[in-house]
Amino acid sequence: MSTIVIVGAGMMGSALSFPASDRGHAVRIVGTHLDRDIIDHALATGAHLTLKRRLPEGIGFFHIEELPDALEGADLVVGGVSSFGVDWFGRHVLPVLPDVPVLSVTKGLLDKPDGGLITFPRLLAGMTDRNLSLNAIGGACTSYELADRRDSCVVFCGDDPAVLRQLRDMLGTDYYHISLSTDVDGVECAVAMKNAYALGVTLAVGLIQRQEGLDATLAYNPQAALFGQGVREMARMLALVGGGADNIAYAAGDLYVTVFGGRTRLLGTLLGRGLTIGEALGELDGVTLESVSIATRTARAIAALAARGLADMRDFPLLDYVGRLLAGEDAGPIPFERFQEESFSKGFT
Amino acid sequence: MSTIVIVGAGMMGSALSFPASDRGHAVRIVGTHLDRDIIDHALATGAHLTLKRRLPEGIGFFHIEELPDALEGADLVVGGVSSFGVDWFGRHVLPVLPDVPVLSVTKGLLDKPDGGLITFPRLLAGMTDRNLSLNAIGGACTSYELADRRDSCVVFCGDDPAVLRQLRDMLGTDYYHISLSTDVDGVECAVAMKNAYALGVTLAVGLIQRQEGLDATLAYNPQAALFGQGVREMARMLALVGGGADNIAYAAGDLYVTVFGGRTRLLGTLLGRGLTIGEALGELDGVTLESVSIATRTARAIAALAARGLADMRDFPLLDYVGRLLAGEDAGPIPFERFQEESFSKGFT
Repeated sequence: MSTIVIVGAGMMGSALSFPASDRGHAVRIVGTHLDRDIIDHALATGAHLTLKRRLPEGIGFFHIEELPDALEGADLVVGGVSSFGVDWFGRHVLPVLPDVPVLSVTKGLLDKPDGGLITFPRLLAGMTDRNLSLNAIGGACTSYELADRRDSCVVFCGDDPAVLRQLRDMLGTDYYHISLSTDVDGVECAVAMKNAYALGVTLAVGLIQRQEGLDATLAYNPQAALFGQGVREMARMLALVGGGADNIAYAAGDLYVTVFGGRTRLLGTLLGRGLTIGEALGELDGVTLESVSIATRTARAIAALAARGLADMRDFPLLDYVGRLLAGEDAGPIPFERFQEESFSKGFT
Repeated sequence: MSTIVIVGAGMMGSALSFPASDRGHAVRIVGTHLDRDIIDHALATGAHLTLKRRLPEGIGFFHIEELPDALEGADLVVGGVSSFGVDWFGRHVLPVLPDVPVLSVTKGLLDKPDGGLITFPRLLAGMTDRNLSLNAIGGACTSYELADRRDSCVVFCGDDPAVLRQLRDMLGTDYYHISLSTDVDGVECAVAMKNAYALGVTLAVGLIQRQEGLDATLAYNPQAALFGQGVREMARMLALVGGGADNIAYAAGDLYVTVFGGRTRLLGTLLGRGLTIGEALGELDGVTLESVSIATRTARAIAALAARGLADMRDFPLLDYVGRLLAGEDAGPIPFERFQEESFSKGFT
């Protein structure tokens, strides 16, 4: 039995308490300063406020001021913050951690001013002089369904195969299936791209509502066209960041699950219907979507690379289009005609 | 204006009459000996019996005995038969065709006794001494939605870029978007694989119904796990047949649209619920599904290749599983644990 400390009481970090508890580990969840209500609610009821599920028995709940106590005897620290919290995690949590592996659930890539993209494990590594083992989780896994113990396939990525195997030994269950990869850039890129492309695919839902009325049947030809174009562009982006081509399987699975995700799908539908990003976010009650932030940064990063001659925007017509919508531009209709390829030699490898 | 003759009055062949008519061509549809009801119904009402849509104005309808008249002055022949009809098409239609390009909607691969796979364009080419231009359509496009003029992205494949461009010039519209490829093996392989893997993905729908009851919410984590595994295996199969890696975009898009297809989805759901293939087909009223035939042949072909040491079944755990279900074996639970990969160097290329 080990002690696993989850820092950040958001939905995905907290959902990891299910496989961790099922493997018999002692689990402690530490809320950030933004998670006070979640921790108070958990202390009072044993349930998670936003995950809307009872958490496993025996979990310890801590407020951020109690972090040092919570870290006492930890064998593994799970970084459970969203991409908005990574900087905070690097500045306030990394320095006080014991010398144990860190496993982060945070998804996304950060775009650097020069147009490059950096993964969160690399960003965190750059924020500390300590030689911590920084690992991350990718793959198609919603927190709700993990908490319901539904079969989920994920990938743990990091630099050290021995640590990755140790993490899998700690957390793998008969419903939580874990692949391992040292291709951190490839996995994280695969994971980050889904946000922009899930908006892209769900544009088709709104497009058909605009063309045929709100009660139109779901249109799978246009969705599939956008899904296929998304996979094509994600494969190209993987090549751009030097990630292995096999990561397209993670990217496609993650895109699939995100297309059915509540708010991302709703936003894509509203944009497809012809609303501006401002109008659409207004309809969504001004909720700040992490996915919008990641999608915007992904599109911006490729545009910056293209401006420097390191990428060709003609290879990314769907991302270009989604980026323009997110920037509030009148981008015109979905550019299906730009998806037409001519492939007159075998492959593009 | 050209004259386009569609031989085979099935749904997809007939749906091509929409872009063909919208481009102003004269269109003739010739039913096979199995299509008598469809042609009689179209002659009487102008509507298509199984597509359940009014066909464009001005189409000529012909029974198979009238094929020579229908072919008079043809500029393009569309092969509109299903995979069950390809042999018939090769033996009875190919010999009487004028010297014009053929564009086939038939999807699938035929497995040869030695375990190899052959595409239908190659099969047809082997059935004639004539030097006909044999081309085919791949991509994610259901006939219903094409007939509804919804945006659809497809790919025309064949050996001659000039002919492919000519075909696109004839049939491309503002809703029918056509990529071109000379990678016939890659495109056809991408297209054929979707049947087996769509069964694989939809197993998850039934699995959750078995675990949680028939009113369970749709489970996207397990579906996404199977979708991602499907993409991984499809990429491997593309490599096996020598198809370009970029075809994974067509394969993924086609898988996406097929997962939502009526009967394939229903069959996968029933199998996932634990019914045998015999019981499941019984529930489906004994209807012979083309997709079952293609999926069975795909699984059989890989197994034959593996038996000869030309493929490793451990690379295809999902296809192996689907193949066993289709063969009526008790294959046990979905082998999620076999989807766990270890990728400790970059990529597998």
